[in-house]
Amino acid sequence: MEMVSGSHERAGFFARSWWWLKAMPKKLAAVVVEVAKNAKKLGRDDPRIIIHSLKVGLALSLVSLFHYFQPLYNSFGVSAMWAVMTVVVVFEFSVGATIGKGFNRGVATLLAGALGVGAHHLARTSGTIGEPILLGLFVFLQAAATTFIRFFPKIKARYDYGLLIFILTFCLVSVSGFRDDEILELAQKRLSTMLIGASVCVIVSIFVCPVWAGKELHNKVSQNMEKLGNFLEGFGDEYFRTSKDEESDGDMSVLQDYKSVLNSKNTEETWANFARWEPGHGQFIYRHPWKQYLKVATLTRECAYQIEALNGHLNSGIQAPAEIRGKIQATCTKMSLECGKALKELALAIKTMTLPSSAETHVANSKTAAKNLKSMLKSGLWEDTDLLEVMPVATVVSTLIDVVLCVEKIAESALELASLAHFKNIDPTVTTDKQHSDQLSTAKQLTKTDCPNIVITVHVKKQEIE
Amino acid sequence: MEMVSGSHERAGFFARSWWWLKAMPKKLAAVVVEVAKNAKKLGRDDPRIIIHSLKVGLALSLVSLFHYFQPLYNSFGVSAMWAVMTVVVVFEFSVGATIGKGFNRGVATLLAGALGVGAHHLARTSGTIGEPILLGLFVFLQAAATTFIRFFPKIKARYDYGLLIFILTFCLVSVSGFRDDEILELAQKRLSTMLIGASVCVIVSIFVCPVWAGKELHNKVSQNMEKLGNFLEGFGDEYFRTSKDEESDGDMSVLQDYKSVLNSKNTEETWANFARWEPGHGQFIYRHPWKQYLKVATLTRECAYQIEALNGHLNSGIQAPAEIRGKIQATCTKMSLECGKALKELALAIKTMTLPSSAETHVANSKTAAKNLKSMLKSGLWEDTDLLEVMPVATVVSTLIDVVLCVEKIAESALELASLAHFKNIDPTVTTDKQHSDQLSTAKQLTKTDCPNIVITVHVKKQEIE
Repeated sequence: MEMVSGSHERAGFFARSWWWLKAMPKKLAAVVVEVAKNAKKLGRDDPRIIIHSLKVGLALSLVSLFHYFQPLYNSFGVSAMWAVMTVVVVFEFSVGATIGKGFNRGVATLLAGALGVGAHHLARTSGTIGEPILLGLFVFLQAAATTFIRFFPKIKARYDYGLLIFILTFCLVSVSGFRDDEILELAQKRLSTMLIGASVCVIVSIFVCPVWAGKELHNKVSQNMEKLGNFLEGFGDEYFRTSKDEESDGDMSVLQDYKSVLNSKNTEETWANFARWEPGHGQFIYRHPWKQYLKVATLTRECAYQIEALNGHLNSGIQAPAEIRGKIQATCTKMSLECGKALKELALAIKTMTLPSSAETHVANSKTAAKNLKSMLKSGLWEDTDLLEVMPVATVVSTLIDVVLCVEKIAESALELASLAHFKNIDPTVTTDKQHSDQLSTAKQLTKTDCPNIVITVHVKKQEIE
Repeated sequence: MEMVSGSHERAGFFARSWWWLKAMPKKLAAVVVEVAKNAKKLGRDDPRIIIHSLKVGLALSLVSLFHYFQPLYNSFGVSAMWAVMTVVVVFEFSVGATIGKGFNRGVATLLAGALGVGAHHLARTSGTIGEPILLGLFVFLQAAATTFIRFFPKIKARYDYGLLIFILTFCLVSVSGFRDDEILELAQKRLSTMLIGASVCVIVSIFVCPVWAGKELHNKVSQNMEKLGNFLEGFGDEYFRTSKDEESDGDMSVLQDYKSVLNSKNTEETWANFARWEPGHGQFIYRHPWKQYLKVATLTRECAYQIEALNGHLNSGIQAPAEIRGKIQATCTKMSLECGKALKELALAIKTMTLPSSAETHVANSKTAAKNLKSMLKSGLWEDTDLLEVMPVATVVSTLIDVVLCVEKIAESALELASLAHFKNIDPTVTTDKQHSDQLSTAKQLTKTDCPNIVITVHVKKQEIE
């Protein structure tokens, strides 16, 4: 009986297994198709990812040559693997990140190597028993202190990787020296292979379709502004749209693009940190005012919070009576539209690095519209209406007025950026640089006449260093 | 003449240098004092940073023992440095991050090592000329493909480090195998030292004052709620404060704490990713509903955007006439206060993992207050006032009403969390779990009666795996 039930069970097990095996190719195919779809989308959304992947492959293949090439192998030995390691770890998506990591790795290895040799010598003088104790103490103190330093926010942002390598190298050198007296020769070999690895990384990352962190930040800030501009341009029509003309629902997705701006802080700060490592490239000189981009970005984000509040009212629809709607619609739409135009103009100006030709006019227009709206409200337009009905509209109006103030601040900050980064003036009829800086109290300290000297100094300095 | 000017120049140079040297100790002292102050502040703000630093020192000293200990050295050889390397790279602040990195490193090394050996054998069969070409091709293809995979968002969040190590190990094994036939023995040694390093990390990180990523996320979500609660509790008094009683300016900083919630997304997602690696600890079982925390956090952040809008009105002061102010003050303050109390109650409930006893009452109270306010507005209270003057107040009222809705959503989501994570019921007089789930349409799918089975299954599964 038991045997029968056992064979039954076994038969059931085999049947299930068979079914599972039969279903597997289908499931596997579905997974593969799904992954392929995702990969295709990823590659299409940002083709630079594919290029970057090929670049990593190229750099690694180049470095692997050291192993194939007999003469090089003889002079570097097993240390050559440090070149491979360096490439894998240092090669990053953007040029700035790659240079930053390479610099961190090089300097940290040099310093920690020297300190490690010193610690090793010091320990050796203290006899057979004292040596391991002293070395253990050194390792402990050094690791604890460096780990603590890694938590300082400013240091973490720029030198985190360097400090990691500092701990690593110090430990390896001081401890491996315990066994080996050829430590200096080893260190020299390791450092030179590391240098080769880092150079290959930097060269490939700069000369094969480079991704500049600075340019990335530049575009990001401009795009975020444009997203807000798109929302504000479309907001008026969308908000005052009656249920009759519902058909224009198609481009609602453009209006929702602003959502990504709300959480953009980390990305922008990361790009700005990387950008500072980069040499001058394209329109960007070394020491381009990256910090000012972050200021503009912060104001843009604050504006996005306001827009988030406006967006909440978009979906609930307008509830005010038609007569009021008619009266404020034109002014509100104009206010929002002009704000949107100003932001898009500023975004374009930043993108092309030219002075904005009409952003200030748009800001002025939106301010005038806000003023008109205010006087309209003052004239007791809504006196015989139910305040509860009017309240959502009043909120939208009030938020829109705040948005106007916000956009004005963004414009000021963007023009300060234009002045600091010497944006070109393409249209001779519009305000000149001098006039701009006069208009801007914030930019007064750095007028066009002051800056070139600074920039020239920087350029000379850079050449000296190189 | 030239000599004289030369000696003058030299004298000037020496004078400047002397001055610089004399000033240096003072400057240096100032810098040291500044750094020490920052370090003290950092250590006081989060003492776990100091503990973590000491833990890293401890783990590294332990691993360094392998080098001092002759018998171990003989069996592991130079590979022992991989243990040091593993500790430096794998040891992270939280247990989850350490386990995650250790797991990634181990599995990636194993897989890539096996593939590397395979590639090496395949290449060897193709003759002296074909070998380097084929190996170069393998390295290129593998590095490019793996780098591309690293960009998938979901994979990046959990396996980024593993893929990096995969590239590294594959290259090192396949290329170094080119020179050395003892590759399998080497791989075995390296893997075992790596295992020792990773074990030391995990053991130290779990058993010496552990920092659990899960608990961190748990506290963070609770704290963020509390910050919003503090703002809302204080908002009413602060907003309706007349210029006479200006003296209560002291605790404005508590009101501004909410700002940190606006940009909390990245931190929370990182903690949640780490938390998933952690075994059960304290009140948290393995597979605690970490995702639900993120849902609560997202709603909290949305509420923070609303509060950012409210905060803008805080500084501008109330401009409405005294009579209106008097009429709405009580209701508005109550609405805000009740919302704040509800949030703080929920925050406390999450923190202590107990069912909130009165959060729903507070939410209901705030909803009643909102209703009262609405009917007050409907009664034509403000008919003979200037709408422009009333508008800011109307905006605040409207935003507060939105906040009430937001808080209600947070409460729902938090109660769903309470149901998923089986928060304890400490007060027998308040609503039971069953009632809770009935009240919550969102939590209906997962009532208390369904859950235990799931949890038990999970527990059994865990034991099986272990």
